[in-house]
Amino acid sequence: MHLVTYDDNGTEALGVLRDGRVHATTGPVTMAELIAHPGGLDALTVAPEPLADDARLLAPLPRPRNVVCIGRNYREHAEEQGAETPAEPAVFLKTTTSVVGPGHDIVWDPEYTAQVDYEAELAVVIGRTARHVDVADALSHVFGYTCLNDVSARDLQFGDVQWARGKSLDTFCPMGPAIVTADEVADPQNLDVRCVLNGTTVQEANTSVMYHSVAEIIAHCSRAFTLHPGDVIATGTPGGVGIFRDPPLLLGNGDEVVIEIDGIGRLVNRCRTERV
Amino acid sequence: MHLVTYDDNGTEALGVLRDGRVHATTGPVTMAELIAHPGGLDALTVAPEPLADDARLLAPLPRPRNVVCIGRNYREHAEEQGAETPAEPAVFLKTTTSVVGPGHDIVWDPEYTAQVDYEAELAVVIGRTARHVDVADALSHVFGYTCLNDVSARDLQFGDVQWARGKSLDTFCPMGPAIVTADEVADPQNLDVRCVLNGTTVQEANTSVMYHSVAEIIAHCSRAFTLHPGDVIATGTPGGVGIFRDPPLLLGNGDEVVIEIDGIGRLVNRCRTERV
Repeated sequence: MHLVTYDDNGTEALGVLRDGRVHATTGPVTMAELIAHPGGLDALTVAPEPLADDARLLAPLPRPRNVVCIGRNYREHAEEQGAETPAEPAVFLKTTTSVVGPGHDIVWDPEYTAQVDYEAELAVVIGRTARHVDVADALSHVFGYTCLNDVSARDLQFGDVQWARGKSLDTFCPMGPAIVTADEVADPQNLDVRCVLNGTTVQEANTSVMYHSVAEIIAHCSRAFTLHPGDVIATGTPGGVGIFRDPPLLLGNGDEVVIEIDGIGRLVNRCRTERV
Repeated sequence: MHLVTYDDNGTEALGVLRDGRVHATTGPVTMAELIAHPGGLDALTVAPEPLADDARLLAPLPRPRNVVCIGRNYREHAEEQGAETPAEPAVFLKTTTSVVGPGHDIVWDPEYTAQVDYEAELAVVIGRTARHVDVADALSHVFGYTCLNDVSARDLQFGDVQWARGKSLDTFCPMGPAIVTADEVADPQNLDVRCVLNGTTVQEANTSVMYHSVAEIIAHCSRAFTLHPGDVIATGTPGGVGIFRDPPLLLGNGDEVVIEIDGIGRLVNRCRTERV
């Protein structure tokens, strides 16, 4: 299933995407409730007809408990920043409140940051509590997959002691459009991940070249802390980010950024600068 | 008021601490609801008599949306690690799921980390949405204050690219015992913060020597991202942490760690190592 959260007259509603149309559902009311539901996807009844009017999609999981990210997980991206390959997945965090949905603007004050960059990522949504899990068992804890843009203010990220602030501006974590349930993803290590900026492909790699697989990342995180249903893990970005290009290619007002993952979805957001 | 969350036969209940005893309340059911309540503290009715039986306290705010932390905010702590003083508050994040309450064990696998350390901190709980706030107005956004122990696995923290994992192990964010509402804290920049390990004071400083005041920290964060009611900000730790001592003084099985802040409270936790 391709599960979405949509705006139903001001409240969040759980829908299913079929042929690009949103179908209403009955059963669990929110994505978080569905993920935690012991009945799983069987708890959901999908309306046979799509909504008559186009629904505005929100982030599929508007308020994850944690947004865990993995840095330097594709060879070309590690190399372009002159970084050593981490022997283990490089964990960092974004604020949970930076999450926005498809179609939502990515907004910043150009006097606050002048170096806003894209990062196309495959994101994993945890479905079942994971603590000290083995690599072999790790994928059984996945609820589904979605596209995520780990938008990064490079001047803040690299000027600070830690990356957290530069990656946590409001709207800097677009997610969606849908969570594709794990049963529909035959192999998370064989997906093409792409960032398309104003129609030009600027990042492209297959998840097969990740240093640390989705399963290894889950196992690694689960040794440090419990992964709870609804936690999101962004699994790293391919080479080609803007800041390490010569000349740099940074986001500006009006730019359209698309994160595409074959079989998972196409996440479109537009950039807007706004002086405070 | 000294507000606590306690375990009422398996559900979270909101209480008020008076003379060391917990009084039940009616009105908002959880701390998060109280913080978001437009009626503020007036929405709460406090039982005149304390609970007959001792209540087990949970973290006063068991599931904050974000746990924002500030590094190197006391001169002696910046100096002991040979770090430059950051011109701006150094922001990082802990997982929201690392939070535990007073009396809860701090637990780790000694084969996973061999360098667990304490960090006594004054924590701020946001009460009113803060976005682009001035320093002069910042404190009006504070709901209250509490004690926080930013427990840190130094080998993981410094071995990783980022600090996040080493500071996010389950149980590595003890908070409490109470949130002391802002009206009872005349000046957050005049509080003695202390860590007492097995009866010996190992950290002690007054918040007057912070590089960046609580108000400056709130203003700084609010330029990057919206601070929402229920967000927690840990404002940095004084000098005297274990890892930079000669010889190092690290936490071990059975150790008792107390975070004390005059007028705010006394947060007691015991350490327990557990092989997985």
